[in-house]
Amino acid sequence: MSFAKLPAPPYYVVCFSSTRTDGDHGYGAMADEMVRLAALQPGYLGVESARGADGFGITNSYWESEEAILAWKRQIDHLAAQRLGRQNWYKQFETRVARVERAYSFSKD
Amino acid sequence: MSFAKLPAPPYYVVCFSSTRTDGDHGYGAMADEMVRLAALQPGYLGVESARGADGFGITNSYWESEEAILAWKRQIDHLAAQRLGRQNWYKQFETRVARVERAYSFSKD
Repeated sequence: MSFAKLPAPPYYVVCFSSTRTDGDHGYGAMADEMVRLAALQPGYLGVESARGADGFGITNSYWESEEAILAWKRQIDHLAAQRLGRQNWYKQFETRVARVERAYSFSKD
Repeated sequence: MSFAKLPAPPYYVVCFSSTRTDGDHGYGAMADEMVRLAALQPGYLGVESARGADGFGITNSYWESEEAILAWKRQIDHLAAQRLGRQNWYKQFETRVARVERAYSFSKD
């Protein structure tokens, strides 16, 4: 995983924090597929993701507008993945939707 | 790391994504100290953090207001840590400051 290339603000971020259940149960393949599908959605800007050895993970996905986020939330394959997420993959998750107002960068080189 | 206990929106999030340089160079101890100090700042609400085996990490910190974020940005010990971060610890980072407008939760139990 690496940095999303984003336009200047304003845009939106969905902060998704989660703890996984034990075992894969098809999670890895579906997660890859959701990243692929999200990138095809209108208004998608990028995604960044990290999960530590303790199983706690954060995915921040970036979108042009609230409308783009709601459309992705209702996308049919994503709805199926959300259902499986609740049934099989996640112990807990927290989602926060926020409007990015400023951004800054640092790079060593 | 686990979930931050947050009030109902609105509040603010600072999304901080980073890649580390090789080696610790005092990073772990300073990161722990910054988490401790941040929690003492007025307007601090909570923090969530994950870094994967590939070295890519995300820390989302939550704040009552933009003023609280700016005060933390200017806190004297945090300024010293920011300088060391640029000199020694981070290859690259991206910071996005956003206003959380809605939030939802899931827990298996």
